[in-house]
Amino acid sequence: MNSLSGKTAILTGGSTELAGAVAFALAGEGVNICLCGRQADLLDMSANKIKEIGGRVITQASELDTLEKTEAIVGQARSAFGGLDILILISPFWSGGMIHSHHVKTWDLVMNANLREPFLMARAALPVMREQKRGEIMAIGSDSALGVYPQDGAFAIAMHGLTTLMELIQAENSEFGIRTHLLSPGVAVSAPFNAEGKPNLTPDHISDWALWLLTRPDHLRGNGPILI
Amino acid sequence: MNSLSGKTAILTGGSTELAGAVAFALAGEGVNICLCGRQADLLDMSANKIKEIGGRVITQASELDTLEKTEAIVGQARSAFGGLDILILISPFWSGGMIHSHHVKTWDLVMNANLREPFLMARAALPVMREQKRGEIMAIGSDSALGVYPQDGAFAIAMHGLTTLMELIQAENSEFGIRTHLLSPGVAVSAPFNAEGKPNLTPDHISDWALWLLTRPDHLRGNGPILI
Amino acid sequence: MNSLSGKTAILTGGSTELAGAVAFALAGEGVNICLCGRQADLLDMSANKIKEIGGRVITQASELDTLEKTEAIVGQARSAFGGLDILILISPFWSGGMIHSHHVKTWDLVMNANLREPFLMARAALPVMREQKRGEIMAIGSDSALGVYPQDGAFAIAMHGLTTLMELIQAENSEFGIRTHLLSPGVAVSAPFNAEGKPNLTPDHISDWALWLLTRPDHLRGNGPILI
Amino acid sequence: MNSLSGKTAILTGGSTELAGAVAFALAGEGVNICLCGRQADLLDMSANKIKEIGGRVITQASELDTLEKTEAIVGQARSAFGGLDILILISPFWSGGMIHSHHVKTWDLVMNANLREPFLMARAALPVMREQKRGEIMAIGSDSALGVYPQDGAFAIAMHGLTTLMELIQAENSEFGIRTHLLSPGVAVSAPFNAEGKPNLTPDHISDWALWLLTRPDHLRGNGPILI
Repeated sequence: MNSLSGKTAILTGGSTELAGAVAFALAGEGVNICLCGRQADLLDMSANKIKEIGGRVITQASELDTLEKTEAIVGQARSAFGGLDILILISPFWSGGMIHSHHVKTWDLVMNANLREPFLMARAALPVMREQKRGEIMAIGSDSALGVYPQDGAFAIAMHGLTTLMELIQAENSEFGIRTHLLSPGVAVSAPFNAEGKPNLTPDHISDWALWLLTRPDHLRGNGPILI
Repeated sequence: MNSLSGKTAILTGGSTELAGAVAFALAGEGVNICLCGRQADLLDMSANKIKEIGGRVITQASELDTLEKTEAIVGQARSAFGGLDILILISPFWSGGMIHSHHVKTWDLVMNANLREPFLMARAALPVMREQKRGEIMAIGSDSALGVYPQDGAFAIAMHGLTTLMELIQAENSEFGIRTHLLSPGVAVSAPFNAEGKPNLTPDHISDWALWLLTRPDHLRGNGPILI
Repeated sequence: MNSLSGKTAILTGGSTELAGAVAFALAGEGVNICLCGRQADLLDMSANKIKEIGGRVITQASELDTLEKTEAIVGQARSAFGGLDILILISPFWSGGMIHSHHVKTWDLVMNANLREPFLMARAALPVMREQKRGEIMAIGSDSALGVYPQDGAFAIAMHGLTTLMELIQAENSEFGIRTHLLSPGVAVSAPFNAEGKPNLTPDHISDWALWLLTRPDHLRGNGPILI
Repeated sequence: MNSLSGKTAILTGGSTELAGAVAFALAGEGVNICLCGRQADLLDMSANKIKEIGGRVITQASELDTLEKTEAIVGQARSAFGGLDILILISPFWSGGMIHSHHVKTWDLVMNANLREPFLMARAALPVMREQKRGEIMAIGSDSALGVYPQDGAFAIAMHGLTTLMELIQAENSEFGIRTHLLSPGVAVSAPFNAEGKPNLTPDHISDWALWLLTRPDHLRGNGPILI
């Protein structure tokens, strides 16, 4: 097993319950956390849980809509914790619609948050990782990337695009000691059981999976769905 | 063979040589042409060739960056020619780069022109086609959709997204008599031969293919690459 | 357009209505036909239609279960017609079942006829085509290759395998002037309309498509589904 | 974590080092092992290692070329250990070649061992698992299933076919409480480092991954590559 203690991770989509679960699990292994998202109150809630177990965490409440912002976050994480080892790109929300009646505003929100933001964050982190010849980028997307489901709209397109982005990053950077992981889980919900008493896929299942991949030896990487 | 005479087609990416070739071939079959693109002079050049063979054509020189603009174009085509039968989405240009040094401006230009513009145009045309229970949407993208090639950057992502968009349109609208075609050709160039004397893939080869698909019986549809 | 006149084609799956339609269409363009299949009477029926329009045709009624047999067929076609230009691999029949109750005999029949037979036929034709630095291999499989449908059983597996076989042939032989086409049509039936009066996909639609691809310039190749 | 203690697993491809590693890891968790393969001496060696740590194991040295044989193995595992919980299908060996010169004997050996044998084993196990509404089938194939590599020949085709087989099993049996896992690792070798001192992918890495998936909660399943 590969120890994570003392490493530094930036997480996007930080306002989601999933990001909270992944950040908490990583902090439990001694990872310094930089949590980025839109909603300051939710970021603070996750940060407080991490502090309660003695973890180190900073938060960044903002849209990641310019390279200046994502580069600033990389800089802040590095000055706060002395490095950057892991970037975790978490899809912040689902929204979609049928194409013939799709709201353009929804298209723009979904594409910006789920595809352009991961690009800008990777764009800022990669030069650092290439220079240090070490680093790890994980995207936690959705099984909407694995097929085509009516009404998924912009979200389906963003998730297929995210897959392509991660494959490009892998192809262009594996020679620089940078590994990637692409997770495409089904829909995760907090409740451990559904109305019929069947077990759900929860954020904890996904963070368990992410943690397992991140603790594998450096030369191994994994992609794939986890589905319920 | 399915006659195209008297039908009306809107083409995006109209400033490209490929769009000019497809429009000319369709006009030769009696299709009324609405050619949309960024560069008025290139649109006029293609329109003049069509007029010389007695074809009917209108041009729209503008970016297709709002639903209002694409709905206006659908309206203009319908009032000029009395209907809308065919929408052809042509990727206007390639640009990319390595992800770690990708220009953000390039990302935005490529994603807007090659993915958001086709979405907005389809978004405007589909309600009309669904109401008339008839219509045809063809996208002519690129073999960048068929793999992951380093340095393709935003273009690769836009082309994979275009594939997903077309699959969503197919899945959501086939019950409404709307058929789709997705063409993913290699790079087409004007010169019939390359420096070594080998034959190239030319815009005429692609327009020949598009025309063949559009003249198949209404209940057939085709996807696929054509490669050199 | 690329003239087919005087070329020689071997077709497998020759007892099917589809093979009959493709052979007839090719013969109409002046192609010499070698039709291979299991049922002598059906082969003769197709051959007689070809002879009525003045076409040249030989038939081979046998299972193609050894390399000796497929090499003999290549030899016979070459001595009868003076060459070998085109090999068309047509899936002879569908059979399947749920995996948990799949008949082993069905598995063996399906895998042999739809996957091992095309391999043996390509295995025999490729050395000739590589030596003459020219040739064309087309497989007409099924849309069972494009997804995973319960109860398709061995047929689904054979069709996915056929896709891989054709991709290997393409990758290994394109430098030798050999081009491939992979067609994955939906189910074709003779009746032009179904019980509800809707048009069907017929063997003639598929042979029309095959003929179109085979008459493209030599440096172009096409894959893809045609679906109803 | 899901305890494996007291469960019973059948493994095919049992003569390989990978099967030995997976069987040893499972036995360490208290799983009863039925190890099937061609080479009795290698099976015995793996069985002895398991017995040394107090594990329970039986071996079956035979080709799995009839349903009678695979049903007999299911019967023996159930009578020896009182049940059947897990089936692990391990690809026994690589062999291939260019299609134009591929040995037919190699084709038959590869297709039988890597595709027909997994089918026959799953065919025998599924009726039991469907009746008990519980069970788990894992296939450990190869990254040859994830692309098309010249010279992979029959192995590439068998691995793509194995993927389809596993997807059919998943689609047809998930309602019966049966989950599947498909692992497509790169080439594993025993030596922890290669000639240049870089770490290899070893059988232990793969068995670690298999064990992790098998110990997830019953309602989760995972597919995917692990690559070096």
